[in-house]
Amino acid sequence: MSPIAEIITIGDELLIGQTIDTNSAWIGERMSMIGIPVKRIISISDNPDEIKSVLADSMSRASVILITGGLGPTNDDKTKLTLADFFQSELVENEEVFQDILQILTSRNFPVSALNRAQALVPQNCIAIRNPQGTAPGMWFEKDGKVVVSMPGVPFEMKSIMETTVLARLAEFFHAPAILHKTIMTTGVPESKLASMLQDWEKVLPGNFTLAYLPSPGMVRLRISGTGGDQSALEKGINDLTGSLVHILKDFHFGYDETSLEETIGQMLSNNHYTVSTAESCTGGSIASLITRIPGSSMYFKGSVIAYANEIKTKFLDVNELLLEQHGAVSQQVVEQMAKSCRLQFKTHFSIATSGVAGPGGGTISKPVGTTWIAVASEKGVFSECFKFGEHRERNIVKASLAALNMLRIELLKETIT
Amino acid sequence: MSPIAEIITIGDELLIGQTIDTNSAWIGERMSMIGIPVKRIISISDNPDEIKSVLADSMSRASVILITGGLGPTNDDKTKLTLADFFQSELVENEEVFQDILQILTSRNFPVSALNRAQALVPQNCIAIRNPQGTAPGMWFEKDGKVVVSMPGVPFEMKSIMETTVLARLAEFFHAPAILHKTIMTTGVPESKLASMLQDWEKVLPGNFTLAYLPSPGMVRLRISGTGGDQSALEKGINDLTGSLVHILKDFHFGYDETSLEETIGQMLSNNHYTVSTAESCTGGSIASLITRIPGSSMYFKGSVIAYANEIKTKFLDVNELLLEQHGAVSQQVVEQMAKSCRLQFKTHFSIATSGVAGPGGGTISKPVGTTWIAVASEKGVFSECFKFGEHRERNIVKASLAALNMLRIELLKETIT
Repeated sequence: MSPIAEIITIGDELLIGQTIDTNSAWIGERMSMIGIPVKRIISISDNPDEIKSVLADSMSRASVILITGGLGPTNDDKTKLTLADFFQSELVENEEVFQDILQILTSRNFPVSALNRAQALVPQNCIAIRNPQGTAPGMWFEKDGKVVVSMPGVPFEMKSIMETTVLARLAEFFHAPAILHKTIMTTGVPESKLASMLQDWEKVLPGNFTLAYLPSPGMVRLRISGTGGDQSALEKGINDLTGSLVHILKDFHFGYDETSLEETIGQMLSNNHYTVSTAESCTGGSIASLITRIPGSSMYFKGSVIAYANEIKTKFLDVNELLLEQHGAVSQQVVEQMAKSCRLQFKTHFSIATSGVAGPGGGTISKPVGTTWIAVASEKGVFSECFKFGEHRERNIVKASLAALNMLRIELLKETIT
Repeated sequence: MSPIAEIITIGDELLIGQTIDTNSAWIGERMSMIGIPVKRIISISDNPDEIKSVLADSMSRASVILITGGLGPTNDDKTKLTLADFFQSELVENEEVFQDILQILTSRNFPVSALNRAQALVPQNCIAIRNPQGTAPGMWFEKDGKVVVSMPGVPFEMKSIMETTVLARLAEFFHAPAILHKTIMTTGVPESKLASMLQDWEKVLPGNFTLAYLPSPGMVRLRISGTGGDQSALEKGINDLTGSLVHILKDFHFGYDETSLEETIGQMLSNNHYTVSTAESCTGGSIASLITRIPGSSMYFKGSVIAYANEIKTKFLDVNELLLEQHGAVSQQVVEQMAKSCRLQFKTHFSIATSGVAGPGGGTISKPVGTTWIAVASEKGVFSECFKFGEHRERNIVKASLAALNMLRIELLKETIT
């Protein structure tokens, strides 16, 4: 029987709603990618009896139990003692773990406290797992052919322990079959349209490959997974399938493996020594803040004018008052002028401009809430498009920002080497 | 024995990591506020046997089971049939539910499909609960003095069902003691300093009241909870305590009950017919996008210059090139000039400016990553402050944006009626 996993997350903060459990989703995705799917997630409080009873139950169902939480440097973390008790062992100081803790604290100029010293104590019968990001080690227990791993609840510490050690060791322990994945990022096309575009491609998909649709606001990730056979055949298979898929997707495809639209654009701009600026009305700075999330964006992003008031459109972006009166701020004429003027004034290769009715107020019959004009200006001129998003202000801002970045991407595709 | 609750969330998307379970945290917080704490959260797949076995287990431990997920209009949602089976009942069409579905679809100009018709089927022995936001009703079952409620997994539908019906009905069913809460929002002060400021106040807190610290990036929410006695004494008690707490907190307190900093500022600005603009470097538009998240912000927000490149600081914000050479872009002189010039050019009552090293690159010994200058300009002049945040780019941007909004708030406090 192929192995299955359960996750136990420990902490009152999860039960009273102070913390949203993001660890489980991340673990669930990674475990399914190594072929050991998670079948149950259980959140409980930091109570020894509760922990022992839930752990015993989980071990009766699953071969892998991943525990997160309850391992910080404070006194109320009872998980370690509880696990020592559960596995009938005693806490002993682990010299390697202590050296790791020393090194981390020294590099941060922190003194080593008694609490830190206590963190080097681990149950004698576990394998301590190095935590590259913090002072609480992970612990790997084996019993009756099953594996229990306990990790700290801090997301980046847990992820680091999983990625550097646990995932590979689990795949080895359970002789998991070779599995490969490739994620293809798409935008500008709804899931339903994608499904019909890919219908024929999916029909001839070899039996050991699957395609998953993973939608999120403004984009759909497509994940190809392949199992079985030897590694190199699998690699060739997944590369060939990725190639034929991307060929069908054409411009809708913008990257691989969790690359964001703003990263893709940043890469395209910097590869070509191009620069960009934005002139934002309805998006209120959200396009600029997406672009500047990327480290190094100062290489290609010069700046923006956020022209929320009409007088600012006139003063900074040369939008004629007559134009505003005749066509309104949410119009092709105004948004194109904003993009053109922004490009000239910021002396950038490209400019993006937005003007729309974000809502909830401001809608009319001819321009209901969600109506959004977006323009991109380049050396060649300016082009623009009108979108009808929805009634929801925050979602309209997100969708308009992604649509604007995507219009820039399409323009860059025509003009650049990638 | 006072009642406790468990949550069961159903859906493969939770186990494979496609969806993060945000429902449970929300439910956990609300249930603890009515005095029926959540003791366990269990996520499972949409499998009838699994659902029945987990539900039976939960009912052996808790008096309230809240189930979310598995109730959409698609064929693979087996939860309703499974619950009918579990409670030995049959699905029958509920006329009220059908009328609700009709009304929702008609108002959205959607046709009524066979799948929608099937949504009006509910187990005969449950009480159907109106879903004000969608077509899948909630279902309330009672058995052996215990309550099981099944709700759709879509967060805004679940929240709406909980708030309009379930929370009040549970409090009534279990004769939950009167509980009142008041949340006080603070910013600009770390949790540890708050704790020492409030030490004496907490010592004399009456026995039926508690204080909880709920930290999140850049702010700490303080929640006073009171139980027992009659409603009006409780109300008076909580009001008095809120008054004395706010008196100690002084300027650190900016609002009540989940108000955001940008809402508070928006209210202060519009109450006084004041306007604001921003000149952003390291925050890259993030302050403007926080301000413009608020509906109606066009009443007080005129716009921004995002001056990422130094030449843009010079061109649009009159930052002398000599000043940049002498002091660097991340300096008091430059950020104050940015704020002053922005205020004059946008003709606003207030302006906020930021200039900092967001990282990961660009740090020096005297100005390490995280160094951030923030200025606020008003009619009275300009004042500025230097912050040292941390090494993490995204967190630096968030912290700088909140610190900047808070500096504006403090300035507004001096000058306005609230």
